[in-house]
Amino acid sequence: MVSEIYKKGETMKGYVLEDINQASWRDDLPKPVAQDDEVVMQPVIVAPCTSDVHILETLAFPTMKGKPLGHEVAGIVHEVGSRVKDFKPGDRVAISAAAIDWERPEAQDGYGKYNMISPYASTDPRLMGCFAEYYLVPQADLNLAHIPDEVTWEQAVALTDMATTAFEGVEWLEIKYGETVVVYGIGAVGLMAVCAAVLKGAGRIIVIGSREVSFEVAKAYGATDFVNYRDGDVIEQVLTLNGGPVHAVVVCGGKGVSAISDAVQMVCLGGRVTNVAGHMADETFTMPNIAWGFGMSDKSIRSVMCRGGRANLERLLALVKYGRFDPSKIVTHVYHGMEHIPRALEQMGGRDRTAIKPAVFLE
Amino acid sequence: MVSEIYKKGETMKGYVLEDINQASWRDDLPKPVAQDDEVVMQPVIVAPCTSDVHILETLAFPTMKGKPLGHEVAGIVHEVGSRVKDFKPGDRVAISAAAIDWERPEAQDGYGKYNMISPYASTDPRLMGCFAEYYLVPQADLNLAHIPDEVTWEQAVALTDMATTAFEGVEWLEIKYGETVVVYGIGAVGLMAVCAAVLKGAGRIIVIGSREVSFEVAKAYGATDFVNYRDGDVIEQVLTLNGGPVHAVVVCGGKGVSAISDAVQMVCLGGRVTNVAGHMADETFTMPNIAWGFGMSDKSIRSVMCRGGRANLERLLALVKYGRFDPSKIVTHVYHGMEHIPRALEQMGGRDRTAIKPAVFLE
Amino acid sequence: MVSEIYKKGETMKGYVLEDINQASWRDDLPKPVAQDDEVVMQPVIVAPCTSDVHILETLAFPTMKGKPLGHEVAGIVHEVGSRVKDFKPGDRVAISAAAIDWERPEAQDGYGKYNMISPYASTDPRLMGCFAEYYLVPQADLNLAHIPDEVTWEQAVALTDMATTAFEGVEWLEIKYGETVVVYGIGAVGLMAVCAAVLKGAGRIIVIGSREVSFEVAKAYGATDFVNYRDGDVIEQVLTLNGGPVHAVVVCGGKGVSAISDAVQMVCLGGRVTNVAGHMADETFTMPNIAWGFGMSDKSIRSVMCRGGRANLERLLALVKYGRFDPSKIVTHVYHGMEHIPRALEQMGGRDRTAIKPAVFLE
Amino acid sequence: MVSEIYKKGETMKGYVLEDINQASWRDDLPKPVAQDDEVVMQPVIVAPCTSDVHILETLAFPTMKGKPLGHEVAGIVHEVGSRVKDFKPGDRVAISAAAIDWERPEAQDGYGKYNMISPYASTDPRLMGCFAEYYLVPQADLNLAHIPDEVTWEQAVALTDMATTAFEGVEWLEIKYGETVVVYGIGAVGLMAVCAAVLKGAGRIIVIGSREVSFEVAKAYGATDFVNYRDGDVIEQVLTLNGGPVHAVVVCGGKGVSAISDAVQMVCLGGRVTNVAGHMADETFTMPNIAWGFGMSDKSIRSVMCRGGRANLERLLALVKYGRFDPSKIVTHVYHGMEHIPRALEQMGGRDRTAIKPAVFLE
Repeated sequence: MVSEIYKKGETMKGYVLEDINQASWRDDLPKPVAQDDEVVMQPVIVAPCTSDVHILETLAFPTMKGKPLGHEVAGIVHEVGSRVKDFKPGDRVAISAAAIDWERPEAQDGYGKYNMISPYASTDPRLMGCFAEYYLVPQADLNLAHIPDEVTWEQAVALTDMATTAFEGVEWLEIKYGETVVVYGIGAVGLMAVCAAVLKGAGRIIVIGSREVSFEVAKAYGATDFVNYRDGDVIEQVLTLNGGPVHAVVVCGGKGVSAISDAVQMVCLGGRVTNVAGHMADETFTMPNIAWGFGMSDKSIRSVMCRGGRANLERLLALVKYGRFDPSKIVTHVYHGMEHIPRALEQMGGRDRTAIKPAVFLE
Repeated sequence: MVSEIYKKGETMKGYVLEDINQASWRDDLPKPVAQDDEVVMQPVIVAPCTSDVHILETLAFPTMKGKPLGHEVAGIVHEVGSRVKDFKPGDRVAISAAAIDWERPEAQDGYGKYNMISPYASTDPRLMGCFAEYYLVPQADLNLAHIPDEVTWEQAVALTDMATTAFEGVEWLEIKYGETVVVYGIGAVGLMAVCAAVLKGAGRIIVIGSREVSFEVAKAYGATDFVNYRDGDVIEQVLTLNGGPVHAVVVCGGKGVSAISDAVQMVCLGGRVTNVAGHMADETFTMPNIAWGFGMSDKSIRSVMCRGGRANLERLLALVKYGRFDPSKIVTHVYHGMEHIPRALEQMGGRDRTAIKPAVFLE
Repeated sequence: MVSEIYKKGETMKGYVLEDINQASWRDDLPKPVAQDDEVVMQPVIVAPCTSDVHILETLAFPTMKGKPLGHEVAGIVHEVGSRVKDFKPGDRVAISAAAIDWERPEAQDGYGKYNMISPYASTDPRLMGCFAEYYLVPQADLNLAHIPDEVTWEQAVALTDMATTAFEGVEWLEIKYGETVVVYGIGAVGLMAVCAAVLKGAGRIIVIGSREVSFEVAKAYGATDFVNYRDGDVIEQVLTLNGGPVHAVVVCGGKGVSAISDAVQMVCLGGRVTNVAGHMADETFTMPNIAWGFGMSDKSIRSVMCRGGRANLERLLALVKYGRFDPSKIVTHVYHGMEHIPRALEQMGGRDRTAIKPAVFLE
Repeated sequence: MVSEIYKKGETMKGYVLEDINQASWRDDLPKPVAQDDEVVMQPVIVAPCTSDVHILETLAFPTMKGKPLGHEVAGIVHEVGSRVKDFKPGDRVAISAAAIDWERPEAQDGYGKYNMISPYASTDPRLMGCFAEYYLVPQADLNLAHIPDEVTWEQAVALTDMATTAFEGVEWLEIKYGETVVVYGIGAVGLMAVCAAVLKGAGRIIVIGSREVSFEVAKAYGATDFVNYRDGDVIEQVLTLNGGPVHAVVVCGGKGVSAISDAVQMVCLGGRVTNVAGHMADETFTMPNIAWGFGMSDKSIRSVMCRGGRANLERLLALVKYGRFDPSKIVTHVYHGMEHIPRALEQMGGRDRTAIKPAVFLE
């Protein structure tokens, strides 16, 4: 059967998850072939994500074992399947970290994210991560996005997960013009959330973090106030700074799941909290009853996942094209050469306090 | 100063919260006088609420001490202040349990419920509960509602808290036509939530409860499926019955705050949970991380309070007038004579498993 | 090429649009074959639509020439393509009149109706109308809906266009509980709009029509007030009856495009008007400036098309299954035998004032 | 009676509408006195509006006859009524052009704009325009807004009508991140709409105008493409430039009411059009049927009025305070001295093609 879906003898190189805390280079991976509605893209730039680090450290998605890691990628169309209409070899393209199965009816009601066909969510061996020479995209007309000429590779790759996640979380906040918004946690996603909040009409934007490099980018993106974990209780700091509760909080990390109850305690009656941070299996989210007004505060909490789909990603690309924000400010380190992927992954692991997001050009 | 706001010598009778587990009749309460934008109404029918029971048992609102209890009432306008435009003595009127201070700018953005001037939320001694011969309503043109001729007293009083609370909770569910909704807890509020769900286009409606009397009314209101706490784990029961997760849950009581994490475990990705039950100060709401998809499930949780205001209550009264639902089915016991208020309160306390909601005509 | 897509020699019978005001039976139509994601269904019941009449009288969609007419159908799965997952021969199924091309990115943002692949919107000769022995459904997993056992054939066919259109128009009205809604025009779509309004919480529902048979069904569906075109100016009648403007109007026909400016004149500041009636090319919609407050009235007008898709139609089917409404009350005439299609079409043309909607069982 | 509401003998100066095309200075106007919930403010800066010009030229609001003109104003609190809580003499304040009667229940459902108590909408002789030494504000706690120190007088006055109108119109467009928006007409309101669109996440912003000065400010505010009426049919220009229809259009003037049908022809299926321009009584808005898809295009048209209220205006002031946009770029001419009001009015009348918005400091 393999002979039908991989071209005989053609292989590729990739950085493969072998086991917990073990990843290695392999050069005998089957190079994918584009069938039907599929595209095979050639990654030009990839970026490691904290969830790659997490998967590597915990094997959280056992489906990834034996596959290349990676889900943030922009590149060039290499080969198109027979049913692909809108893409051709050579096109510059990007894809949301949440590749979606649009052939399920659930996709008709919302924003198409409830049927992931990403490598980590699928047992299909053909669906591999993007830390490899080639990357297979199913339902390409619906999942790939054209990158406009005006958008750089760094900008494009920064959109694929950091912005698709952050913008989704901020959109659900339903910000009214001039409201006060807190961005809790300002790694790469949080910084994109600052941009997203500015572009939905937030007035004051208070960010919570600890690293100088992040505060600087946050300021450049439009944050107006800065709260440091190290300066004491963040709830108190925010309430004092703002002279009372804020309208909305987007939790983008921070200090684990307790950030959510912190957030609920920061917002006013009727306030909104969205969470876009992945929290780990052994964390239990606890809400002191008084924090949410004994269940009668009109406060809402929403857990939000990265949005998939071409339409959404092409709109985010349009924002960059028309100069509304520059996602590449979060890319603090750029490497040239596939061999730097392990180093970038390690950097993303957090030991380097000057790094927000590394990106790696494969060549 | 008292001489200015109470007519000299005029007193009234009321059932007063004296201390924890102590309430007594007094007949020397100052009868209120309508000033400016106020109306004094004469209660015709009142109903005890579980929160009256709770306040009596715990003194949860110390501001109520020395005041008559009660906040569910419909009656007749007795006296109007000089600035009242739309009401005159003799008018049949009702008021939401959440009387609002519309003179604060917060009321401009939403639905006016974030500045309560109800007796239990206010230190103003003139604002007393409705278990008394007279009841003062501030900002009457904005807080009182006209009762149409077609609506009975029992129907009207059932709307003031049970329906204003339940309909608000269901509205926030943003039900799409034909979705499956769970009503978790079918006391009086839960039963109103069944009506509210039908009237927002729910298809299947699964109710969770244990009392026969409630199941019967739920069925009459349009519930299609019935889950009993006593038959085992409710999450499992719902998932099995429905062949998978439901779209939305409104928590109207149930077994305390843990109902919320149960609800989150019953809904699909993108599912909505609202809570309209008041939960007590010592309860801590805990969310197993897996229940809400590690923070990436697009599930939302909203705590919702009773909506105040004339516009909303007059719309609910219109629903009854035009025969869309009959809230009086929840009124299982009707008493005539003010003296029955303590007995009705006790019944509401829950020891009588045949009672959903008692109501008391003052005469 | 034909040999590839039609089985050699297999033909079917259908009622074909030949030219303006000319339709005829042919029995040499190529019977479709299900490929890939397609299903071929065997119509059990079909219903003529006013737009069939219109297409026949004006050839409004020249793409239909030479094809069987018809787009309201429920039936049985006859044959499935290799990629179809959720349907098998023998299944009872229905399809929205708006079959959608879900493979275009536009479908990702909304409700999937902007890329029709219905017979009248497509030049593909394989896509024919349903007044035939077999009917081809593309992207079947996304366009077909399973009919629950509890739902009758008459109910199912009444949903496919009448309800999918009316419910969409009413959904956009964003009715608040208890608001007053006008249904302007109570043919089959208007009557479904009455149900849709009840199921979104309308209080008073005023219908405008002229035929006794429609008024009766409207009343059974929950309309509360009845305005007859013949009794004078409808705007005046509605304003007098209601004692002022209403909250929302859904235009489902009435007296042509002028119904829209009538509707705008009936609604209050902030009021909503949706139009679900197809208006003809030579009608120009004119809005007296004063009617919409010189452009400063916060009134909105929305033209709305039938929603497509399996998810939506299966939810409407759930409403019927759970007894929320019975769409078959609009089916006033039922015929048995394909040969009655022309007669049903004629009846739909409006000369029979006792007919709302005829339906034809093919056998 | 006058003796009760105006202080004996105290008069003030104002620029009074006498009749069609006649306005004159009077210095014997009764100076208002703040009662109850009222504030008397001392205008520091005022701006003429095209509707002032229109009222002067046509006496469109006969209620204004004999009163000073003007409704765009920022100033200093001069005197407060006994029930005013949040303002004191000396406070810097502004007020939306739409002063609202918050004491009507209609204000509870929406955004409080359906019960205007502005001078032009009211027959109350105490409610006069702001082109005078003093200006009476009813329900001051709900209608006045505090101006933050960081906001200049020019910025504040530019918000009171130009931004409250434009932002409202753009909010109703429900822009998704990255969508393409057309601003049709770029006078002062249109330019504020460019800012509003940027701050709701528009990608490409195409503006339609003809004056160089407006194009320059539009560009500075973030417009990306520029269409000139003089270069031919604007519909064609927009469709060509964009390679197809746009997502949304806000009509802020342009060439009269026909701009609305132009706009409908520019938007895609499902597209949104809002109109914030006041159109005159003798203009009739005509919609070619094909433009809106025969009533089946899912296109919507909304007429939108300036939003009133303290909460909204204080949020817009927060946007300026936090540097999100600078409304003072539209103030092309600043005069010092009340006597310049007639000249500013004339300039607003449109004969000066270098003027967008003049403003006049009273001293």
